[in-house]
Amino acid sequence: MTRSVASLVARARAGDARSVARLISLVEDGSPALGEVAAAFAPFAGQAQVVGLTGAPGVGKSTTTNELVRALRAAGRRVGVLAVDPASPFSGGAILGDRIRMQEHAGDPGVYIRSMSTRGQLGGLAAATPQAVRVLEGAGCDVILVETVGVGQAEVEIAQLADTTLVLLAPGMGDAIQAVKAGILEIADVFVINKADRPGADHTYRDIQGMLALGERAPGEWRPQVVRAVAVRREGIDEVVAAIDKHRHWLTDSGALRTGREQRAAVEVEAIALGTLRARMGSLRDGTPLSALAARVARGELDPYAAAEELLKTL
Amino acid sequence: MTRSVASLVARARAGDARSVARLISLVEDGSPALGEVAAAFAPFAGQAQVVGLTGAPGVGKSTTTNELVRALRAAGRRVGVLAVDPASPFSGGAILGDRIRMQEHAGDPGVYIRSMSTRGQLGGLAAATPQAVRVLEGAGCDVILVETVGVGQAEVEIAQLADTTLVLLAPGMGDAIQAVKAGILEIADVFVINKADRPGADHTYRDIQGMLALGERAPGEWRPQVVRAVAVRREGIDEVVAAIDKHRHWLTDSGALRTGREQRAAVEVEAIALGTLRARMGSLRDGTPLSALAARVARGELDPYAAAEELLKTL
Repeated sequence: MTRSVASLVARARAGDARSVARLISLVEDGSPALGEVAAAFAPFAGQAQVVGLTGAPGVGKSTTTNELVRALRAAGRRVGVLAVDPASPFSGGAILGDRIRMQEHAGDPGVYIRSMSTRGQLGGLAAATPQAVRVLEGAGCDVILVETVGVGQAEVEIAQLADTTLVLLAPGMGDAIQAVKAGILEIADVFVINKADRPGADHTYRDIQGMLALGERAPGEWRPQVVRAVAVRREGIDEVVAAIDKHRHWLTDSGALRTGREQRAAVEVEAIALGTLRARMGSLRDGTPLSALAARVARGELDPYAAAEELLKTL
Repeated sequence: MTRSVASLVARARAGDARSVARLISLVEDGSPALGEVAAAFAPFAGQAQVVGLTGAPGVGKSTTTNELVRALRAAGRRVGVLAVDPASPFSGGAILGDRIRMQEHAGDPGVYIRSMSTRGQLGGLAAATPQAVRVLEGAGCDVILVETVGVGQAEVEIAQLADTTLVLLAPGMGDAIQAVKAGILEIADVFVINKADRPGADHTYRDIQGMLALGERAPGEWRPQVVRAVAVRREGIDEVVAAIDKHRHWLTDSGALRTGREQRAAVEVEAIALGTLRARMGSLRDGTPLSALAARVARGELDPYAAAEELLKTL
């Protein structure tokens, strides 16, 4: 390990917020030191509960995260927050702006808050976020909240790397059932119906409960919890924390924690390996053979599958 | 080539809509016959102009597409439409619902309309959509409109596979400048300000023109066009078609068509190659070595980068 990385790691382990921030920047930038950082933090893997938090724009994700941080801190737990920007040209920047609301925790040494953009990162969210989680784990966080906006594939990737996934809904957004139909039943461990003081909240609650009642579960399998909250008024937040804790106990007792984390590690290792391969192919792009193969495909002399096969032979 | 694929290809070439649909289904499902289909259509590569069409939800993408189809048909051109669903659990289904509005073209033998979901597809949008484009090209389309909602990475991938990219904006959505800042200046060849009869349309128009004026362009480089339209009233549609045609001429005259298509082929070949590698790794997931490596990572005995290196040695 290089001296600078070793010293950053030692200071992060001792709780130095600036060193934590520097290490996460190395991760975000795809630094060549990534491997070193990961190796240094490997022994502390699995010490924190990783809680994913996702939902459509406007459901109140950052307010809810903010209140969860407050409640977890009141219970004496060290908390990390990663706000992950899926880096759409259309949504880009919106999440970062919301971070301002979390400034109230800025002076608390028991909280690390960090926004991350994965734009251009090899392997995307799947490769970069787990490394940042490792850093926060090594820095002693008990709970790590990973927040992302529910667009694109991001929320599925969040679910893959979280121990516990919260899906936020709000009444009157007209998409509760559509969202449920479209697959979030499978990723949510806890549904939070935020803005539950608004008209339609009971309807949304019943809809979700109704959908959950339809799903078949094996004995001992987790049944997603549904919690009503009004985050801006701090209502229902303790109930959300209780649901997270309940899920954690179930994970441990059922053995799902271990198998889930092995699966997560498999996804992570695979993403890193694919990133490496992609980088190798990319470096070929300007010379032979990829550019030569591509020119033949563009001229209609070769089909892209045959070209891909040729390309793989050169790796 | 198997007999069934050969016969489908022959019938699609002769303009049979059901065979075109069957072939696109093979593509969408990631059929093992993909390579065969691609090989059969390779000689017809590059005959159509591929026009990407993207924008945030609510800007009027499907109405605009519908009116573009009508205008292109009136000019005697054969048109293919691919509505690509980026397969978010949160947006899933919305695009397919919108297709209903295009029913009016259902009886026209000069129009192929197809919704595609890329959920779970190896290599995602980047791998599947170009194959569907090839099928439509082989079936004799002159223009292929590829429409996708502007969330996640999808619109960047659309721009990569299109000859000409239209970005739709609407006044009063409050995100014109933010969208521009966030990177769509680089992907748009034509901006369409739809709903241009609404308050704020002039403001949006001036904002976009102002941003474009700031960008530096080399002599002969394309300057993105900005067109105002009210698609529901069929206003400005001819101007959009004229901008598309103008861009097509520029592409041909400048040589950008050839280099763009070679680049596109490179991206496509790379995506297919990565999909193949991913499938190979995935098949290892249940046995050694990926699962064994993942278990060691989960236990903190190995870091994921070292594990990825081990994994690559097994490929």
